[in-house]
This record gives sequence, C-alpha cells and structure tokens, in this order.
Amino acid sequence: MQKLVIGLFGFGTVGEGLCNVLRNSKTVDARIKKICIKHAEKQRNLPSSYFTTCPEEILDDPEINLIVELINGGEDSYSIVKRAMQNGKSVVTGNKAMLAFHIEELIQLQKKYGVALLYDASACGSIPVIRNLEEYYDNDLLLALYGIFNGSSNFILSKIFNEGMSYTKALKLAQELGFAEEDPRFDVDGIDSLYKLVILTVHAFGTYVSPDEVFHHGISSLSIDDIRYAREKNKKIKLIARVEKLPNDKITLYVMPKFVGSEELVYSVENEFNGVVIEGQFYDKQLMYGRGAGGFPTGSSVLSDITARAHQYTYEYKKLNYFVPPVYTTENLVDVYLRYTRASDLDHFRFAEISERYTSNNYSYVVGKIRLSNLLSAKEYVEKLKIFIAVV
Amino acid sequence: MQKLVIGLFGFGTVGEGLCNVLRNSKTVDARIKKICIKHAEKQRNLPSSYFTTCPEEILDDPEINLIVELINGGEDSYSIVKRAMQNGKSVVTGNKAMLAFHIEELIQLQKKYGVALLYDASACGSIPVIRNLEEYYDNDLLLALYGIFNGSSNFILSKIFNEGMSYTKALKLAQELGFAEEDPRFDVDGIDSLYKLVILTVHAFGTYVSPDEVFHHGISSLSIDDIRYAREKNKKIKLIARVEKLPNDKITLYVMPKFVGSEELVYSVENEFNGVVIEGQFYDKQLMYGRGAGGFPTGSSVLSDITARAHQYTYEYKKLNYFVPPVYTTENLVDVYLRYTRASDLDHFRFAEISERYTSNNYSYVVGKIRLSNLLSAKEYVEKLKIFIAVV
Repeated sequence: MQKLVIGLFGFGTVGEGLCNVLRNSKTVDARIKKICIKHAEKQRNLPSSYFTTCPEEILDDPEINLIVELINGGEDSYSIVKRAMQNGKSVVTGNKAMLAFHIEELIQLQKKYGVALLYDASACGSIPVIRNLEEYYDNDLLLALYGIFNGSSNFILSKIFNEGMSYTKALKLAQELGFAEEDPRFDVDGIDSLYKLVILTVHAFGTYVSPDEVFHHGISSLSIDDIRYAREKNKKIKLIARVEKLPNDKITLYVMPKFVGSEELVYSVENEFNGVVIEGQFYDKQLMYGRGAGGFPTGSSVLSDITARAHQYTYEYKKLNYFVPPVYTTENLVDVYLRYTRASDLDHFRFAEISERYTSNNYSYVVGKIRLSNLLSAKEYVEKLKIFIAVV
Repeated sequence: MQKLVIGLFGFGTVGEGLCNVLRNSKTVDARIKKICIKHAEKQRNLPSSYFTTCPEEILDDPEINLIVELINGGEDSYSIVKRAMQNGKSVVTGNKAMLAFHIEELIQLQKKYGVALLYDASACGSIPVIRNLEEYYDNDLLLALYGIFNGSSNFILSKIFNEGMSYTKALKLAQELGFAEEDPRFDVDGIDSLYKLVILTVHAFGTYVSPDEVFHHGISSLSIDDIRYAREKNKKIKLIARVEKLPNDKITLYVMPKFVGSEELVYSVENEFNGVVIEGQFYDKQLMYGRGAGGFPTGSSVLSDITARAHQYTYEYKKLNYFVPPVYTTENLVDVYLRYTRASDLDHFRFAEISERYTSNNYSYVVGKIRLSNLLSAKEYVEKLKIFIAVV
C-alpha cells in the first residue's frame, strides 16, 4: 500500500468530517498535511498551522502525493485539478459541474501525466455507481442506466405525493432541512441530475456528451393539475435521468419527470434518497439505493476513493478504451405528456403522433410521441411558456 | 488484456448460455476450448469435438489458462478447483457450498500458486456484492451486512404475505416455476443463505466462520399462527441472513426469519429477488437489489468475472490482509419470537429476559432476549419440536 500525504482543498462539512475519520482510522495510512481555504479568519477545529490560503503551498509541495478537492465552484476546481495533475499528483474530487464539462480533457491528462483522477462522490453520493460501471458492468450486456440522481427534487416530490404538500411548501421544507440550496434551480431544474448523467454515461458506454446537448427538464413548472393527473392514474412523478442504448450503436440521454407506477423499481425511492437502475441482458434490472448527497455520505465516498488510491487504483475507462463507443442521438421518439396554457404554445412542438388531447379553460395537455431533438430545440419555449413535460 | 482460453466444467443452463454470449461478444477476447461433461450421450448444440468426459483433458492442457467451473456437487467441484489451481490455472466458480467450506484453504492456494479464484456468482447471483465489498467498502466504516439472499424462500414468503397463499401451495408454485428444487430444504431451511453469508463475511470483515458454527433457521416450520401474528403487527416475514459488528472487535452471524415493517429496506424486496443491505458509518444504509439466481443472472455474473480475469483482476482480501479481522461470537443476545407447542418445549431455551408470553391450547409463544449460543446448541430441538423462531 502507498503511504498517502494529502493536500486538501476546502474545509466544509465533508472536508472536516474527512479529517476526523482519517485521524481515527486504524487502517488507512493517509495523513492530511495541508488544507487550502478561502477565508483565513474563520474559527476552525484544527491548529492554524494546517491551513493556507495559497494553493501553491499544496500544489508545489513534492511530499504531497494526493489532492482531495472539495470546494464549490466549477472553474476554480478545474484549475486546481488540472494543475495538480500537471504536477504529477493524483486527485480525488466530487465536483460534478467541473467533471461534466471537462471530463474529456481530464481523461487525457491522466494518461499524459500518469496520474489518477477518482470521483465516485460526484455521482449519487455514497452509491458506488462509477466503480461498478468500471469494474463490473464492463461487458457489452448493459442496455440502460437510469434513476433518481437528485435528492432535493426527490424529497420535494415525495412530500407532494405522499403527504399532499404543495410544491412551494415542500421546497421550503427541503431548504429548511438542508436538502435544497437557497437557489434551488440547480436541483429542481434537473441540472444536477444532468451533470451526473453525463459523467455516468462516460463510464457506462464510453461516450462523452456535452451537457448543453442533452434535453433536461425539471419539476419547477409542476402544477396541481399535473399532480392530479398523476394521481388519477395511480402514479407518482419522479425526476428521472436516463441513458439507453438504441439499435445501430447509438445512445440517447435525457433528464425529465416521469409518471411512475408501483411496478417500477424507482417508485419506492423516496425523500432525499437516490436510486440507480442498471438494466442489461441476462441480469435484467438491478437497483442501487442509498444516500445521494450530504456531508457524511459524500465523505464516505471520498474516503473509498482515498483508500482506492492507497491501492493504486485508477479508472481504466474500459468502455472508452476497449469498445467502440456508441454515437449520441436525439432523433429518437419519446412518449410524453405535455401540459400547456394557450393553444398557440403547441406550435413549438412537432409531435410525430398524438394519442390523447385534452383542452379546457385553464388546463390542457397532449400525450404523444415527439422527437427528443424537437424538445431540445424548443427548450426556451418550454421555460418561457411554463410548460410541463413528463415521460409517460 | 490477456487472451483467455477457457476450459469449462458443466454445460447446464448457465454453461450453455455463457458459450453463446462469448461467441457473440465483440469485446471479450475469450475462447472456450473444451467442455467437460458427465453424460457423453446427451444431445447438445455444439459439435462433439468440444466435449470430453475426462477432467484431465482440460486440467492438463497447457493452453487453457482459465477454468470456469459450473457443476453441481460440492466435493467434485472442490477437487476440480484445487487441481486447476495446483496446475497454475485461474478459476471462476459460483459454487457456494464448496466455497463456504473450503474458502480458507482456497485463499491460501491462490497465494501459493499465484493464481486467481473469482466467485461473484456464488453470492446473490447478478448482484456484485463481493466485488463491492472488496473494492468499495474496503475501509473500516462497515457496520453490518444483511438481507434476503435466497430467492426461492423469498418467493414463497411473498406469495404468502401478498396473495394469501398457503406455505404448501406457494412452495409448489415455486417448484413449478423453477424457483425451488424438488428437494427444497437447501433453500427454505436457510442453508443456501448461510453459505452465502459465510462467503460474504470473509469479504466484509475478513473473518472466516464455518457454516457449522452459525445458527440458521428457515421457514419450513412457519405456521398460519405465525403468519397471523405478523399480519396483526402489520409486518411481513422475510428470511434474513445477517453479519454485524459488535463492540470489542467481535462479529456475529445468523440466518433467521424476521418480522419486517414497511420502514425497512428489505420490506419491498419481493418474489424471487434478492436485496443486500450494507450499513456503515457515514453512508448509513445502502441497498443492492437484483436477481439472485437463475441461469441468466448467474451467467452475467460469471461473465463479469471472466472479463475481470481478462484484466488480471484478483480479490485482494483486503479485510483479511490489511485489517485485524474481528472474532466471531455467539454470546450476544438476540430479540426473538419463539412459537412452540408444549410447555416443556421451552425447557431447551434459556431466555435471558422474557417480555411477552402467550399461551393457548394450540398456539403459544414467548418474545424475549436469548443468547445466540443457546439457540445454536438447541438446534436439534428447534427442528424436532417444529418450533418457529423469528427476529423481532
């Protein structure tokens, strides 16, 4: 086992918890040497000699052989991770926004500088999805990967469907309990799920798809009419991120609400929990369920990556290196429910097939098949016109 | 990647399915060279040149570098696996009975002959439990591992609790559908779960416990009174295998029915499915859910082990090699419901504490705390007196 000397960036809940665990662990031979923070004046539970505000003090220290990056902010994180790797240091990070946009380059940098970048904490917290995709689902049986990747929005939907709470009240409660940020858009608009989906797709199929090219739609336009519609059909609404294999070596991705019945595995994934379904030939469906966010679950995931580094573990990117990665398409049809306000709203959407239409004074919807590419190009109207779309 | 030349033992559902997958796989560089079978006269879907009835033709072939062992029968399997390893060949197997009794020696043989033995298929079919314990839960956060490890008995219990079927009828249905064997004792008496628990405990905590030293109790003595008792308390009965950490570096193991409420993760694991809960500091509880048995799920698991071998993967037995494995104890108290017939039946059980007593002409029970060691030493009476015990 390699003796790890760690330089830590960020000393929030996860960072501080990690320091405690590492100090008390009898089995992980890792020492935190220096911690880079932003605000030197804050009172902290460690001697001040541990802290620095100067990244170079860590990045240029030859004794430090592992960087653990736990700061917010995509571009700061990107710069630290990149410079660490250029300096020959391996990195553990959980920064999904940074990874979703830079993962292609970061894979190249790992090869170029002979270092490892591990980030299991970036997708579904404590659930070891990336590791399993790399190590276990590394054959060509995999057909689809989907599920509930965001705890905040799932918490809100659970409160709505199980306790009859309004969206506004449920969001407020989620914020009070610390499951949702002041600015909840990252969670409720599906962006967090989208970033995770982009990262997981690289490990599931070997294909990188930029977040900008994927249709994502969240739950902030959810109305009481949509909720009633779901209830009448004995369904719940869940925010689902999904990548699936299509014929002819193609894959497709989306993040969208979905009407989910009790026969589906994700139906019973409630509150702040995440559930990832892995579907394949032979093994049918598997569910991995656990805590997707929060200081402790994220900390446990970071710790698993640190011990993996002690055993010199690196992602092999098997699907990228040993397979011909499938091509991303949005030309496939999806079955959706689309709720709108004015008849003219529908002009922006070219349904290939409509199976149901309902109109009334203040609530109208269509159910039908539409190309994902059409939804993607009509994204601005979805938002402007407060349209709600859900997979049926 | 290593080019694999495989010698296969056994050509049942799993073996035949595996041959098909490997021939059609574009990504796994593995060829099946020879298949050892018992009955040469059977008609098969491959040219007869593939088959042999002589194990040596495979075991002594220097070109063959991987043995895939898929036969029934513990001792035959043990002899093949051992000889293969002595001849310098790595082995993939799913034989839980063989492993549960010989795993200690087989770990030594791996080291001695520099070969690998992979057996993810042996515990919970397609769910990658062993791999995750080895690679992800390899730190000291793990507190307990438990769940539904046997699909046949879970199918029977689901039919009883969800559809009001009788035990006898549910068992018959399970047999008709191929979820239970002619002789169902291996499944319904908890032996199958026990073997899996023994194997998983080696990877979860590094401790080997002989199956003979673990208290296991199944569902074959379940009566309509026990079912009614569970229903009145709004619970289902599930057959649970469990290993957990105790204070002072000890662990304890059992296989027993348990009254399970809807707040528990295993509550919604139904029918032939398995669900494994991993409990730890930080990450709280995680559930891995999937198909635990059957030709296809087992085949997918075997395939994952084969591709892992192509990447030279071996189990590191991290908990065994880098930790001080905890000591097995049965001196802990468990809370149980014990249903009996005659008052004298209770003489064999020394409860440390009784919290409930109920007696009537034909149905009596106690609820209380009892030492696991007492249950273990009273095992013959549990069976002879048709007593039913369940964890409360």
